[in-house]
Amino acid sequence: MQLLETTFWSAGGSRHRMAERLGFSKSKANALVAGLVEQGLLTEAGLQRSTGGRRAENLQLNAGLGVLVGVDIGATSLDVAVLAPDLAVLAHHAEPADVREGPGVVLARVRGLIKELLARAGFTAKQVMGIGIGVPGPVNFEIGQLVNPPLMPAWDSFSIRDYLREDYAAPVFVDNDVNLMALGELWRLKRSLSNFLVIKVGTGIGCGIVCHGEVYRGAAGSAGDVGHICVDQEGPRCHCGNLGCVEAMAAGPAITRMAVQAAEAGESAGLAECLRTQGRIEAIDVGQASRAGDAAANAIVQRAGNLIGQMLASIVNFFNPSHVFIGGGITRIGPLFLAAVRQSVYQRSLALSTRHLEIQYTPLEGQAGLIGAGVLAMQETLKVRGVAP
Amino acid sequence: MQLLETTFWSAGGSRHRMAERLGFSKSKANALVAGLVEQGLLTEAGLQRSTGGRRAENLQLNAGLGVLVGVDIGATSLDVAVLAPDLAVLAHHAEPADVREGPGVVLARVRGLIKELLARAGFTAKQVMGIGIGVPGPVNFEIGQLVNPPLMPAWDSFSIRDYLREDYAAPVFVDNDVNLMALGELWRLKRSLSNFLVIKVGTGIGCGIVCHGEVYRGAAGSAGDVGHICVDQEGPRCHCGNLGCVEAMAAGPAITRMAVQAAEAGESAGLAECLRTQGRIEAIDVGQASRAGDAAANAIVQRAGNLIGQMLASIVNFFNPSHVFIGGGITRIGPLFLAAVRQSVYQRSLALSTRHLEIQYTPLEGQAGLIGAGVLAMQETLKVRGVAP
Repeated sequence: MQLLETTFWSAGGSRHRMAERLGFSKSKANALVAGLVEQGLLTEAGLQRSTGGRRAENLQLNAGLGVLVGVDIGATSLDVAVLAPDLAVLAHHAEPADVREGPGVVLARVRGLIKELLARAGFTAKQVMGIGIGVPGPVNFEIGQLVNPPLMPAWDSFSIRDYLREDYAAPVFVDNDVNLMALGELWRLKRSLSNFLVIKVGTGIGCGIVCHGEVYRGAAGSAGDVGHICVDQEGPRCHCGNLGCVEAMAAGPAITRMAVQAAEAGESAGLAECLRTQGRIEAIDVGQASRAGDAAANAIVQRAGNLIGQMLASIVNFFNPSHVFIGGGITRIGPLFLAAVRQSVYQRSLALSTRHLEIQYTPLEGQAGLIGAGVLAMQETLKVRGVAP
Repeated sequence: MQLLETTFWSAGGSRHRMAERLGFSKSKANALVAGLVEQGLLTEAGLQRSTGGRRAENLQLNAGLGVLVGVDIGATSLDVAVLAPDLAVLAHHAEPADVREGPGVVLARVRGLIKELLARAGFTAKQVMGIGIGVPGPVNFEIGQLVNPPLMPAWDSFSIRDYLREDYAAPVFVDNDVNLMALGELWRLKRSLSNFLVIKVGTGIGCGIVCHGEVYRGAAGSAGDVGHICVDQEGPRCHCGNLGCVEAMAAGPAITRMAVQAAEAGESAGLAECLRTQGRIEAIDVGQASRAGDAAANAIVQRAGNLIGQMLASIVNFFNPSHVFIGGGITRIGPLFLAAVRQSVYQRSLALSTRHLEIQYTPLEGQAGLIGAGVLAMQETLKVRGVAP
């Protein structure tokens, strides 16, 4: 179990290195590996590059173990994938969706997509080892249910697990979408960073926290709920009831609102043109106008970046992470946004906290949540199965 | 080693329970305990209350192991204690101090006090097992030095460890004062809480973080530096260069400043009287006036509490702790302050984050930092010594 988990997280390595990592003797490691290979859980694929001396084998999880299903439910998007045990994507589908349509509609579509993708990848329902699902709201991780989700009230206390249990014997794990982005990046990094944050900016703003090398969910599962941090005491009223929440002032809908205002006030010919032809302006249109040099669009992008940076400055002072990765729809808006965030953080955070701080877009880009769902499925399945040792 | 550490953290327990906690077999635990008792590291003191069946012995660290020295250096105070391995205080001295006088002056006094207290408790320098020191600034924990401490620039990169090494063979460990308060409370709680915060409000404002059951120091050791979180974009300028930092608006000096203003503006006969007779007003005087029903003092206490609560609301949204313990000089100001903090946090944080959140004064009161220094000394000494097993 420990050995399988280590293999999963380190993605290849020799028996020797595994033994070192787990504090096992070489002979114990040899015996364990032999047992797991015999059980069909591990394979010794390929050969590691020789570092002098005899060549070492490269341990991998056996592809014959089965497949994982990763589902990333965003507020306005749906991603489903079938993944190999090493998280290689075997089949993937993405489409727009509206989470407010409720669990009945959205999960029926998820169910259909999983079936379709499994068929496309050539697997059956029985070969599914585990299912990981990310949702855009606070989750009680133990029971796998959303708790008071502001963006999707119809999902409150709905059991996603029971819904999918009808089709699959495999265990189903549900977590907040940003936690899964953090888990995905942690896996990509092979745990080489211990303390970092992933901020998702889309319809809302959330944060995934990695602390002491593990995803941190908080005492009640709501850690990282940074969208309602106040950045302006006299700001507009947020749907949560308070004034000046960063989400109400700088997330996707706020960017759209500022753009429509600029278009209607005649401050931007480009945005006005966009509004006229499309009937609406999306955040991505503001990004496009900004990259084309539109002054009003630039001001909007900069304002959103500065407000998010201001929120982030508080968090950085408190948490002192080594890295902040920014993901979500906002990343498509371009580099000016990132520059504005950085400027704001470096100005407002303490020097010691920012001296080695790196702020960048999520390296896994749009895949972070989906990969994270796969990591969750694999990791928790290994725990639940309790395969010895 | 693991067994000694478990004994230290659990403060008494039977072999049986130790074995359970560490996942050892009963026979292995028996052999280990026997060995440690023989080495004089553990004693089997007293008998645990029987729960039916045979009576179990109560394992304790042997008092003959030696003593610990705990030092809590505040911005304006100095606490030194000699502690038994179970952290019972054997001798203790507290006095006002000014950390700005620099390490030469302050540490000479610390050295003198340690000598005096050891003599009073009847121990020699050789019997000191470990020394733990808390300082009011950011610390590089590995090397035990302060890094850019804003309140005590003369201490930057000074080696407290080398200074005390002249007198003591025992290892010296240095940490931020609020981290030690958190460590002290974690020890008091026998690790029964995994995710909580300790906020110290005195001359400055700092925060100790316990995450996944361990003190969290951040990527560069500056985690918990919450004093410079902005609570008012148009607030007064802080010594850090930014506007509206919570420390500049609500810590001890700000409370004093507001009180002097109220006294001079004729808004409070009580505070004016205090200013006339003492020549100054301390935060504790404001607390006294507030408890006596002075409206101006009440307004000041409430304002400070609300501002700190506003900062805390951001942190609570982000970290979702189960408990927030407030310590430092501010606790002497009375219950109105705590009420104002709570009001502000409950109003501004998300319902899910505050549903089970408890906000109270540090249960260890003024001793939290000193006990934490003792815990640090003991825990790190056990690690350094690497006593088997």
